[in-house]
Amino acid sequence: MVNVVWAEEGGLAANDRGLTYGDGLFETIRMQGQRGALLGRHQRRLLADAERLGITVTHDALSRACQLAAERYAPGFGEKSDAHSGEDGWPGQGGWVLKLILSRGPGGRGYRPDSNSRPQLLISAGLLPPLPPATGVVADIARQRLTVNPQLAGMKTLNRLEQVMAARELTDGVFELIMRDHNDCLVEGTRTNLLAKTTAGWITPPATALAVDGVMRQWVLDCLRRRGEPVLERSLGLADLRVPACEGLYLLSSVLGVVPVYQLADAHLPVTGGLATICDLLTTLE
Amino acid sequence: MVNVVWAEEGGLAANDRGLTYGDGLFETIRMQGQRGALLGRHQRRLLADAERLGITVTHDALSRACQLAAERYAPGFGEKSDAHSGEDGWPGQGGWVLKLILSRGPGGRGYRPDSNSRPQLLISAGLLPPLPPATGVVADIARQRLTVNPQLAGMKTLNRLEQVMAARELTDGVFELIMRDHNDCLVEGTRTNLLAKTTAGWITPPATALAVDGVMRQWVLDCLRRRGEPVLERSLGLADLRVPACEGLYLLSSVLGVVPVYQLADAHLPVTGGLATICDLLTTLE
Repeated sequence: MVNVVWAEEGGLAANDRGLTYGDGLFETIRMQGQRGALLGRHQRRLLADAERLGITVTHDALSRACQLAAERYAPGFGEKSDAHSGEDGWPGQGGWVLKLILSRGPGGRGYRPDSNSRPQLLISAGLLPPLPPATGVVADIARQRLTVNPQLAGMKTLNRLEQVMAARELTDGVFELIMRDHNDCLVEGTRTNLLAKTTAGWITPPATALAVDGVMRQWVLDCLRRRGEPVLERSLGLADLRVPACEGLYLLSSVLGVVPVYQLADAHLPVTGGLATICDLLTTLE
Repeated sequence: MVNVVWAEEGGLAANDRGLTYGDGLFETIRMQGQRGALLGRHQRRLLADAERLGITVTHDALSRACQLAAERYAPGFGEKSDAHSGEDGWPGQGGWVLKLILSRGPGGRGYRPDSNSRPQLLISAGLLPPLPPATGVVADIARQRLTVNPQLAGMKTLNRLEQVMAARELTDGVFELIMRDHNDCLVEGTRTNLLAKTTAGWITPPATALAVDGVMRQWVLDCLRRRGEPVLERSLGLADLRVPACEGLYLLSSVLGVVPVYQLADAHLPVTGGLATICDLLTTLE
């Protein structure tokens, strides 16, 4: 049975495997009051990836912990006491981020886990980061490369040093750095997935080649497919992002939403608001 | 300035980057009383890799912390009060393991570190693991593969999920699992480096291809070179381990020492005690 730890009441044990080996997973969930954007998808991904790692947590325990967390933290982030007080029907205040860290727990002999380790679910709340303008952002290419192990592909594990090293390259005015693999394919941003609109259709790198297969990416692809749009999951190179064949590049994040890129390194890219309108995170609150 | 945390007095903060992203390094040092095997090499590796990651720690602070740790923990592991009481001049009792975890510390905006983060040095002591017999051990090949990012190669970072997943495959009677990369090259064990004795000389995979470039490996290679032995740093395949061209396979660990392999999967390998005699960890106590 998973043990829930509230971050403000202390961290994990010094020998917790989440710290010692990055032996765990995490989720960051955009909250509005007590409701979470794509909450069910976040929970399902965490459960599926925990199963891949052999960390035992049940849907009921996770769901209950998220509910307790929403009740615990939402009031501190400006939740309205009257749920219908927003003029437009949306809770205009109260945006925050719920973070879940699931670790395999303490113990084991070196790298080898102890089958009796009790998984730990460390829960914290944070401010929403500054949201990018609808007019888009500047992105650049990271020098730090990504190496994706197919056996661990797509999972939001606690092994994120490549992303940290790329994020150290960020400079003022650059919103995101896009990371390449060692074949010069564009894989993903440090904290976002990539989606390009081209004359051949929407292109996004396949899940099997991703370090993190984002919940937002999965939802946006489902939205596009439901609308009958052509979606190609294939490797993406800089050549795919040349105008006029490229009609737009989007960064996808379940906290930031759909973020258009108007400039990639020295190249300007067209920006339309269409995708952000179709795929509005706030329509997914659960 | 690095902040020293003793594990028995608590862990790291819930938002420490060592936990949240594996943003840090570790060392495990074989201790005998207050002296550490290859202690200076462990310290130099930690300092060099911290510099690669951009984590600031000074030699003096690290050295002082190790000294305090030795004084603090050695008595609990059977340190003799009279340093000369061992019959053979060696402290026969008092073997233990000193573990250092250096993290970048708390804070930052997502993956992007805060330049004001204060590095944390989490120090703990543990029992020596069971030492393998001089007659050697059984090893097998892991299904879990290693993917080494050349930009992070060799560093003993806190991103060790591949090793954890391989170690989950361990079964009774198998001492170590050897991990291959996606080109079927043998890279290293889950917790050891590889060194093969062949008719062409000693072969070990090059540091640039390693997940962890072990302190023991570096020292053993130095010993062999000083003796004029031919050492080849090149990729190692299963074909290199066929008898009679292969005269022995050794697992190298700064805690376990030189460990000969007498059986790899279904193949038997010759075992001699020569390398373990030449490269005896206990001659390196500092």
